[in-house]
Amino acid sequence: MFSELPTPCVLIDMNRLDQNLNVMEQRIQKLGSSLRPHVKTHKVVELARRQVRDFAGGITVSTLAEAEHFAQCGFKDITWALPLPQSQIKRALKLSKSIQLNLLIDHPVTLTFLEEELKSCNQSAFVFLKVDCGYGRAGVLPDSNQALLLAQKMHKSPHIEFSGLLTHAGHSYDCRSKDELKGISKQERNSVLRLASRLRQANIPVPCISIGSTPTMSVVQNLDGIDEVRPGNYVFFDRAQVNIGACQLENIAMSVLSTVIGVYPERKEILIDAGGIALSKDEGPGLSKNKYGLVVDVISQKPLYQCDLHALSQEHGKIKYTSEKPPFNIGDRIRILPNHSCMTAAAHHIFFLVRNNSLEGQWTPMKGW
Amino acid sequence: MFSELPTPCVLIDMNRLDQNLNVMEQRIQKLGSSLRPHVKTHKVVELARRQVRDFAGGITVSTLAEAEHFAQCGFKDITWALPLPQSQIKRALKLSKSIQLNLLIDHPVTLTFLEEELKSCNQSAFVFLKVDCGYGRAGVLPDSNQALLLAQKMHKSPHIEFSGLLTHAGHSYDCRSKDELKGISKQERNSVLRLASRLRQANIPVPCISIGSTPTMSVVQNLDGIDEVRPGNYVFFDRAQVNIGACQLENIAMSVLSTVIGVYPERKEILIDAGGIALSKDEGPGLSKNKYGLVVDVISQKPLYQCDLHALSQEHGKIKYTSEKPPFNIGDRIRILPNHSCMTAAAHHIFFLVRNNSLEGQWTPMKGW
Repeated sequence: MFSELPTPCVLIDMNRLDQNLNVMEQRIQKLGSSLRPHVKTHKVVELARRQVRDFAGGITVSTLAEAEHFAQCGFKDITWALPLPQSQIKRALKLSKSIQLNLLIDHPVTLTFLEEELKSCNQSAFVFLKVDCGYGRAGVLPDSNQALLLAQKMHKSPHIEFSGLLTHAGHSYDCRSKDELKGISKQERNSVLRLASRLRQANIPVPCISIGSTPTMSVVQNLDGIDEVRPGNYVFFDRAQVNIGACQLENIAMSVLSTVIGVYPERKEILIDAGGIALSKDEGPGLSKNKYGLVVDVISQKPLYQCDLHALSQEHGKIKYTSEKPPFNIGDRIRILPNHSCMTAAAHHIFFLVRNNSLEGQWTPMKGW
Repeated sequence: MFSELPTPCVLIDMNRLDQNLNVMEQRIQKLGSSLRPHVKTHKVVELARRQVRDFAGGITVSTLAEAEHFAQCGFKDITWALPLPQSQIKRALKLSKSIQLNLLIDHPVTLTFLEEELKSCNQSAFVFLKVDCGYGRAGVLPDSNQALLLAQKMHKSPHIEFSGLLTHAGHSYDCRSKDELKGISKQERNSVLRLASRLRQANIPVPCISIGSTPTMSVVQNLDGIDEVRPGNYVFFDRAQVNIGACQLENIAMSVLSTVIGVYPERKEILIDAGGIALSKDEGPGLSKNKYGLVVDVISQKPLYQCDLHALSQEHGKIKYTSEKPPFNIGDRIRILPNHSCMTAAAHHIFFLVRNNSLEGQWTPMKGW
């Protein structure tokens, strides 16, 4: 089977994928919350459908083009997890005529833009207040006055359905152990609960509290008071997640299949046909070896530590080997576990689905903005 | 015009592009060689047509899918500049029934595979011997016995049209000055001329000698004995090329247009809607500031050095600013000059063409393998 596929290509190990979906589902159900998976990692309708079974059915997206695509494919409750760009307001409101599109705001200026547009077209919009739980990317600080003022403004707005609080602990990606991760997951939850309590004391209802990243949701032990969580990367995982402590190497469900196109014993190097476009140039988590992905055996997916994927051109990858003889011949296939599966997925237009080393089908992700 | 485009998106500055095309054309013509541009940087048929005017019309591609696409669009002489993967031989030979597809070989095993396939389908193929001029990626060493033996084997093969020698000085990307670059460009030319001379002494004709990278071809002063050159990145250039000494900032013809979606004065940061998927995560050439791209004014394209694009998520970019007040408001547009235009181009499905700040049209690059 592996010898028939065109390379480079993305393979999805369906056994690992199923296990990843089950583990996350069971964890979140057991902790009494709902899963609103982030589909940005894969952008595949069939996979999103698997992710939302038994749940409310809502998903999270990273671009408005994704929201439009998933809406066309039947998803009716979509959160666009990016602070609403002013330039996209008209387009977003057009989509929100046919589905429940939940928007994010963390700045009064954007709220004013949105309100003006809603007034002029006599519509209403579902809006979350985006909260910064320590990541420092987007959001209002949970203990700030601005948070209270902005929530109040939304609550009072005749055009806005104030949906609640939303945060994302992206700084969990800096963790290097489960204990560190557990600390961040507590901070993520506590920050929004603290703000929710302030809002409720000020008679501002908070219909939904939404948190979640793959790292924090992989270790979280308490979701009391949390209505929904939004991990995304957990479907595939990757080497960065292993490094964080969110999963094991054996959980990584995505790999890139590649062909050996050169063997150079004089410099103990092998050339493969997967380069920066196929793997992304997201460098490994602080690793000097296998900076651009981990070379594994094509069948067993066991790491080949004598190989070091150390350089990428556009369509060439260079592997140094430490064994006496070259570990591969011209024409051999290898698999590479990606550093960051979201970035690698974004580079491919087909995902080949593999179960027990047989091809089970293929998925087509959506692209663009 | 800029306020109407959806963001993030790629803009091509057509004045700069025209100038880049003219400068390279004139340089190569003056030096008496031919241009066989590498189209992997952009993968756009309309742009490739502009590149080959007044020349032989041949192009270079990085994938077989590119070769197929450009062949369908009328290009009849295409060099696939990757050591031929065994798994793609059948597909390549299918294409070479309708056009002249020039293949690369640097290993006797691949030659054997190819010869067997050619024999079985009674075809012939145009094949270059790939030479390593010091880059250490692919190719035979020019002074090695293997180089002579492989060329001899090709020359004698009843199925192979031995096309000549091809090299690429990719190590020019490590240069940090024009003088260094000139040294590499001499090495690139001399290595193949040396091998060509050995082959001719052994009565092996060398019909074509092909060299070239954008850095070396931007400074080369002597192309005597060189039949064709294959730069690619020069159409757009990028920050890496500025760092190498191949161009100036004012020559960069590609930029990413983005919208400001957050302003956070408490930490002097701005959030934009261009992340790793829109810019690629190819880090800047050894820069601590503006690691992921240079922020420039949307109209003048002058660098805004008070801004530092220091972090990227999938769809978010973070800029730190040093000025007292935020240099942008929510909803403002900015442009980012990419570190590596090949990687940034690969992330986009539309290129918007801009001349004198007016939209002139759009191009659609091909994708996939």
